[in-house]
Amino acid sequence: MSSPAVTYARQNQPRFLDELKALLRIPSVSTLPENKGDCRRTAEALASELTCIGMENARLIETEGHPLVYADWLHAQAKPGAPADRSSSAGWKPTALFYGHYDVQPTDPLEEWLSPPFEPVVRDGNLYARGAADDKGQVWAQIKALESLMASNGKLPLNVRLLFEGDEEVGGEGIAQFVASKPPELKADFALISDTELFAPGLPTLCVGLRGMIYTELEVHGARSDLHSGMYGGAAPNPFMALAQMLARLKDEDGRILIPGFYDDIIPPSPEELQAWRSLPFDEEQYRISEVGSRTLVGEPGYSVLERTWARPTLDVHGIPGGFTGAGAKTVIPAKALAKVSMRLVPGMKPAKIFALYKAYAEKIAPAGVDVEVRLISAGDPCLIPVDNRYIQAATRALKEVWGRETVFIRSGGSVPIVGDFARHLGIPSVMMGFGLPDDNIHAPNEKFHLRNFELGIESIMRFLEEAGR
Amino acid sequence: MSSPAVTYARQNQPRFLDELKALLRIPSVSTLPENKGDCRRTAEALASELTCIGMENARLIETEGHPLVYADWLHAQAKPGAPADRSSSAGWKPTALFYGHYDVQPTDPLEEWLSPPFEPVVRDGNLYARGAADDKGQVWAQIKALESLMASNGKLPLNVRLLFEGDEEVGGEGIAQFVASKPPELKADFALISDTELFAPGLPTLCVGLRGMIYTELEVHGARSDLHSGMYGGAAPNPFMALAQMLARLKDEDGRILIPGFYDDIIPPSPEELQAWRSLPFDEEQYRISEVGSRTLVGEPGYSVLERTWARPTLDVHGIPGGFTGAGAKTVIPAKALAKVSMRLVPGMKPAKIFALYKAYAEKIAPAGVDVEVRLISAGDPCLIPVDNRYIQAATRALKEVWGRETVFIRSGGSVPIVGDFARHLGIPSVMMGFGLPDDNIHAPNEKFHLRNFELGIESIMRFLEEAGR
Repeated sequence: MSSPAVTYARQNQPRFLDELKALLRIPSVSTLPENKGDCRRTAEALASELTCIGMENARLIETEGHPLVYADWLHAQAKPGAPADRSSSAGWKPTALFYGHYDVQPTDPLEEWLSPPFEPVVRDGNLYARGAADDKGQVWAQIKALESLMASNGKLPLNVRLLFEGDEEVGGEGIAQFVASKPPELKADFALISDTELFAPGLPTLCVGLRGMIYTELEVHGARSDLHSGMYGGAAPNPFMALAQMLARLKDEDGRILIPGFYDDIIPPSPEELQAWRSLPFDEEQYRISEVGSRTLVGEPGYSVLERTWARPTLDVHGIPGGFTGAGAKTVIPAKALAKVSMRLVPGMKPAKIFALYKAYAEKIAPAGVDVEVRLISAGDPCLIPVDNRYIQAATRALKEVWGRETVFIRSGGSVPIVGDFARHLGIPSVMMGFGLPDDNIHAPNEKFHLRNFELGIESIMRFLEEAGR
Repeated sequence: MSSPAVTYARQNQPRFLDELKALLRIPSVSTLPENKGDCRRTAEALASELTCIGMENARLIETEGHPLVYADWLHAQAKPGAPADRSSSAGWKPTALFYGHYDVQPTDPLEEWLSPPFEPVVRDGNLYARGAADDKGQVWAQIKALESLMASNGKLPLNVRLLFEGDEEVGGEGIAQFVASKPPELKADFALISDTELFAPGLPTLCVGLRGMIYTELEVHGARSDLHSGMYGGAAPNPFMALAQMLARLKDEDGRILIPGFYDDIIPPSPEELQAWRSLPFDEEQYRISEVGSRTLVGEPGYSVLERTWARPTLDVHGIPGGFTGAGAKTVIPAKALAKVSMRLVPGMKPAKIFALYKAYAEKIAPAGVDVEVRLISAGDPCLIPVDNRYIQAATRALKEVWGRETVFIRSGGSVPIVGDFARHLGIPSVMMGFGLPDDNIHAPNEKFHLRNFELGIESIMRFLEEAGR
């Protein structure tokens, strides 16, 4: 670990952190129209930085959403198209496709942040800011690993392409279309995705499974316009009450989803995988207290927390906009109500089929007096990565060297739809090597990134590239 | 109807309308802190107008909310405190206490207004603006009736006190406290309240029953802070789902409220009253189409719409603020959720008891993993007015003369808590003589006031005062 590149990274760590802070100050909230300019500014900053560290062809690629950022460095002996070159196998170098996202989640509820979300600050060895761990900090670790290798060696141990998106938090439609078009810029042998977390502090982790998702809006219409609840209460349908009754029929109080056919296609984890999960350092009571902070945990009886969050589907309500939401009292029967509802899907489940089952069921259980409209906002496939490919193996060796411990293979309950897109359209496996921690508060107030993980993340990526390019 | 006062009112009608428009331009939304100054400005405009038309002692009375407006004219032979005067019964004149409110409902959803809510405009014989019917237009009818009598006769046929409030739409705490203190300013023989509606266009109506209400907030807390629904979905409690499950257990899909004991104390309408309601010009299908505009009407089986809205309690949800309410997708499990829930109460039901039953039940049905907090925002008693008192009788005669039809006695599903306060603290009956129409869209977009009702309302009030002072 005393290579010139590692030495360079360690010596330049304070500057790396300052640069990351500057990136975090740009409020690149992809879902908010008012931050559209900030998203572009972030993309431009990344493209400019990629050129500075020696990457080539850095540019923005326009989408219907926020722009993609692309760059490459292809001067390691490239995997040749011509058979003649293939014979000189010793010289062949693979091409890595780096992926990350520069957009961030909204910050509400803003009043719960201990320091402003776009004024990064270090407290107790953590960097606090929206996007610190998800995902600007991890993108920066990728870039700083490349900078350290380039600055120390004048070259990289393999070929590299980078593709960062700005719509990950809003469904990633733009990058999905770009990947589906199979552009020559994305010819690669594997992807390196840094948008996940370690299972526990100090425990090197590769994520090899992800839940898919459908994100929907369930809208209920009652009266033609808002009505006075005194005059009409008892005769006019109340869309908020109707919506509540419908939501209560989507999921029971044990956490079992009541949509007919919902569970039919699930492929459960293998007995070996379940056994490996049971040996992970995980205490459900500790998790409840330190991470969730609720009175009890909930969910389907008969499954462990890891099974429930990694290998079982679920359904959540994110908000119910509309109606009267101000302070005080307004005695209105709103004309309509809307619930933001998403479902997490596990291997075997198909988003399109699940949405169709859900839509049919929602229309069937609509109470009298209301009309129902069900809309799909975004969808992503669940995925499982085979662990026996050479890049996962290289990553496993690299992580062991940097962190001094055996790598664990886990899944994540979240969704990284790009992994499925890379597999389907580019035919390449993804190495999900991320450096967040379970308590990083991503998507919540007081998001943070552990500084030690930022540092070891940079070293892990460098070592992995060396192993993969060997 | 050709008295000098009526002639004056008719001749000055265009000016009366212009003045009302000016009043409606002030956005006196009592529930919004940013309109606090507008509420005061409205109160000041009313006090100033009352002085202009010849009322005396016009002034604002401060409360913890928006100010009350008071004025009087006590130069008809007053009801004497001294027994000596009482004997000259021929000269005795009663004192009327006029009541109305100058505050208005919020305007959301603003995008559904055909013209801006605070830019009054006449279309098809109706004046459109927030507050046109509820209640500035009716307050203005009271004031213009007094102006017409004073300008034509130099005096009034009885003594008058006026008390207008600015907190009616937010619970009316200030006026309730003022009335409860039994101040000398409120010594009167009856109240004239203009804040109700005709049963049908052209049908003179006195409202003799009101539902009471409790307005509450039901808050549910799950995890300590917002969580990522991918990481934690399936293990962390979802307060929005818990709230939906609780709401679904408060009221079933037939409209029956499930709180134990909720219906126990109800005093049903008499067979005679029910018989009178059945002869009112009311068609449920027409009401559904023209007023509600929903697929079907809802509510308890076995009761007519008039019974359900006048004489049966109900429970409505007005909004569920919190969580993610923006456009697009945010995959969050919110830490808490809040529902604004109100219940309308009918004679026999006590707000304090109903709140206690509701609170105990809500705490009992809270799903695992969440904590529940139930808050009372405001409360008002239901009430019934005996129809055999001399002021109801005088009003009945006056309305018949002006409208040319027999007066009908109805109830309202809404709440006018002040009626109960006047009865309890001042010992006086209320005459609820209002001139709105069922389709005036009060509390909704495109609120209007029928101009013919504004005109005949002024004449009705004049005639009523003459009858009551006879």
